[in-house]
Amino acid sequence: MSILVVGSVAIDSVKTPFGNREEALGGSATYFSVAASFFGKVNVVATVGEDFPKKYISLFKSKGIGTEGLHIANGKTFRWKGRYDYDLNTAHTIYTHLNVFQNFKPEVPHKLKNSQFVFLANIDPELQYNVLKQVSSPKLVACDSMNYWLEHKKKEFEKLLDKVDIILLNDSEARQFTGEANLMRAARIIISFGPRAVIIKKGEHGVIYFSKDSHFIAPAYLLETVYDPTGAGDTFAGGMIGFLSKAGRITEANIRKSIIYGSILASFAVEDFSVDRMLEISMGDIEARYRHFREITKF
Amino acid sequence: MSILVVGSVAIDSVKTPFGNREEALGGSATYFSVAASFFGKVNVVATVGEDFPKKYISLFKSKGIGTEGLHIANGKTFRWKGRYDYDLNTAHTIYTHLNVFQNFKPEVPHKLKNSQFVFLANIDPELQYNVLKQVSSPKLVACDSMNYWLEHKKKEFEKLLDKVDIILLNDSEARQFTGEANLMRAARIIISFGPRAVIIKKGEHGVIYFSKDSHFIAPAYLLETVYDPTGAGDTFAGGMIGFLSKAGRITEANIRKSIIYGSILASFAVEDFSVDRMLEISMGDIEARYRHFREITKF
Repeated sequence: MSILVVGSVAIDSVKTPFGNREEALGGSATYFSVAASFFGKVNVVATVGEDFPKKYISLFKSKGIGTEGLHIANGKTFRWKGRYDYDLNTAHTIYTHLNVFQNFKPEVPHKLKNSQFVFLANIDPELQYNVLKQVSSPKLVACDSMNYWLEHKKKEFEKLLDKVDIILLNDSEARQFTGEANLMRAARIIISFGPRAVIIKKGEHGVIYFSKDSHFIAPAYLLETVYDPTGAGDTFAGGMIGFLSKAGRITEANIRKSIIYGSILASFAVEDFSVDRMLEISMGDIEARYRHFREITKF
Repeated sequence: MSILVVGSVAIDSVKTPFGNREEALGGSATYFSVAASFFGKVNVVATVGEDFPKKYISLFKSKGIGTEGLHIANGKTFRWKGRYDYDLNTAHTIYTHLNVFQNFKPEVPHKLKNSQFVFLANIDPELQYNVLKQVSSPKLVACDSMNYWLEHKKKEFEKLLDKVDIILLNDSEARQFTGEANLMRAARIIISFGPRAVIIKKGEHGVIYFSKDSHFIAPAYLLETVYDPTGAGDTFAGGMIGFLSKAGRITEANIRKSIIYGSILASFAVEDFSVDRMLEISMGDIEARYRHFREITKF
C-alpha cells in the first residue's frame, strides 16, 4: 500500500570525526523515502530550488520513489551544514539556509490523496495538520517533530497529536514537551493528547514504543563504525512505515517487527554519509541483519 | 554452588530528588550478596568497624548470607554520602570516609577457599589479584572496577584482567580504559587482555555482553519510579552470578539469562533506598518480572 511522506529534501554538508561531505543529498523526506522504498511505493511531497541537482531526481526515480509532489520553486534548495564530535548523538549546526523551504506550503497531488500510509516529517505542525486535511482516509498516520516546534508551536502540536496514530520523538523532546524526566510517564502524558502510540528514540540506545496498554523496548543494532548519524531518525521511520505498508495489517506483532526493521535501516544509514550506504544494500542485506539482530537479542 | 564476594560493606547516606536516607546499609558486597542470595549460598569477605549495627549482621544472616569473612576491625565503618539530581545516572559524592576500609586486606576463610563462583567487587586491583591467589580453582571469576583504579593502577588492572572470566565495567570506564569511544571496539580491546567476556553496563540503557565470538544486547527494564540508583551495578552482578551459580553450567544461553536476571534484580533495587526493596520481594516477584521482560522485548 502506497506511502506518502511530507518533509524536506535538502543539500547537507556534514563533518564528523571520520570525514566530511560537502553538498550531499539530505533532508527528512529523502532519508525516509529511500529507507521505505525497500518495502514498497513511496511518494515525496517536498520543495527544492532550481539548483537542485538532476542526478538526485534520477536517484529518487531509480529507487521507485514518486517525485510528482516534489515541487521545484524559484530560488535555492534548503541547505544545512553541521558537525558532530565524538559524541555522535549531538549535531552542532553550522548554518541553516531555509531558502525555498521557508515558503513551503505542502500540496498533495490529487492522485496521492488516497495514500494509505502517511508520514509527516519534521515541519511546522500547522503545515503537518494542513497535509492531513488533504488526504482522504489514511490507514496510518505517523509524525515527527523537533524541539523548536515543541517550544514555539506547542498548541498546534497538541492539536496535531490528536489526529495522528503514531508520534515519534527523541528522548529529550519527549522530556521537553511533557516536563517529565521519566520516559514511561512522559509517554503516558503524550498519549493522553490522542495518538494511539508514541515511539521515543534514544539514538544509539534504541527505541521505546508505548501504546495505551502495552510497551516494547528495542536496543539499537550495535555498530563498529558510525560515520554520520544525520537522518537516522527519518531512516528509522522510513524502515518502520515501509515494513508496515508491506505487512498491511497494523497489529502489535507487526509494529514490533517494523520497529526492528526501522532500526536496521538506520544502522545501515549511519555507516556512510548521506544516503550512500542505503544505495549499496539489497533487501537480502536487510534481512540478514534483521536475523542477526534477533540472534544477538534473544535469551 | 557457593558464591564468594569480596568488596565493601558500608553505611551510605543518599539524597535523590525523591527523598533521602541517612546511615543506611550499603556497599558493593552488600548489594551483590543480597541479590545473589535469591539464588543460592553467598559468603561475604569484607571489613566493617565496631560501630557496624548488629541489625545489619542479622539482616545478612536472615538472607542466608555467610558472614564468616566479615571482619570487624577497630575503628569506624566505611561511610559514603552522595546525591543524585534528575539525571540519576550520575552520583555526586559529598564525602567518602574510608575508615577501616582503608586497611582492608581481604582474607578468605579457609573453608571458603574452594568457592566455585567468585565476584571481586570494586576494590584495589592488587587486592583483587591477591584474593584470587587465595581461592583454589573457581569455576567462574567475575570482577568490577572503577575509574580511579583504571587511572591510578592501570598496569595492576591489566594483570588482573588476564585472570578473570568476566569483567564488568560501565560504558564510561570502558571508554576511559581503552581510549576508544566505540563500545564494540572498546570491548575487543578489553578482551585482548585475557578475560573470556566483558559486560558493559549502560545504566538505564541496559547492558552489552561481548565474548570473543559473540555478543548480546539487553535493554534495561523500564521503570516508572527510580528512587535511588546506588548499588545497581553490584546488584546486577549479584543477580547475574547468582543465577549462574544456580544454573551450574556456564553456557551462552545461561549467560544471557543471567544478564536478564541481573537486570531484573537491579530494577527492583533502584525502586527504594539501600537494599530495602530487595528485602520485600520474593523469587516469585523476580520470575514474574522476568516473564514481563521477555514479553516487552520479544518481536
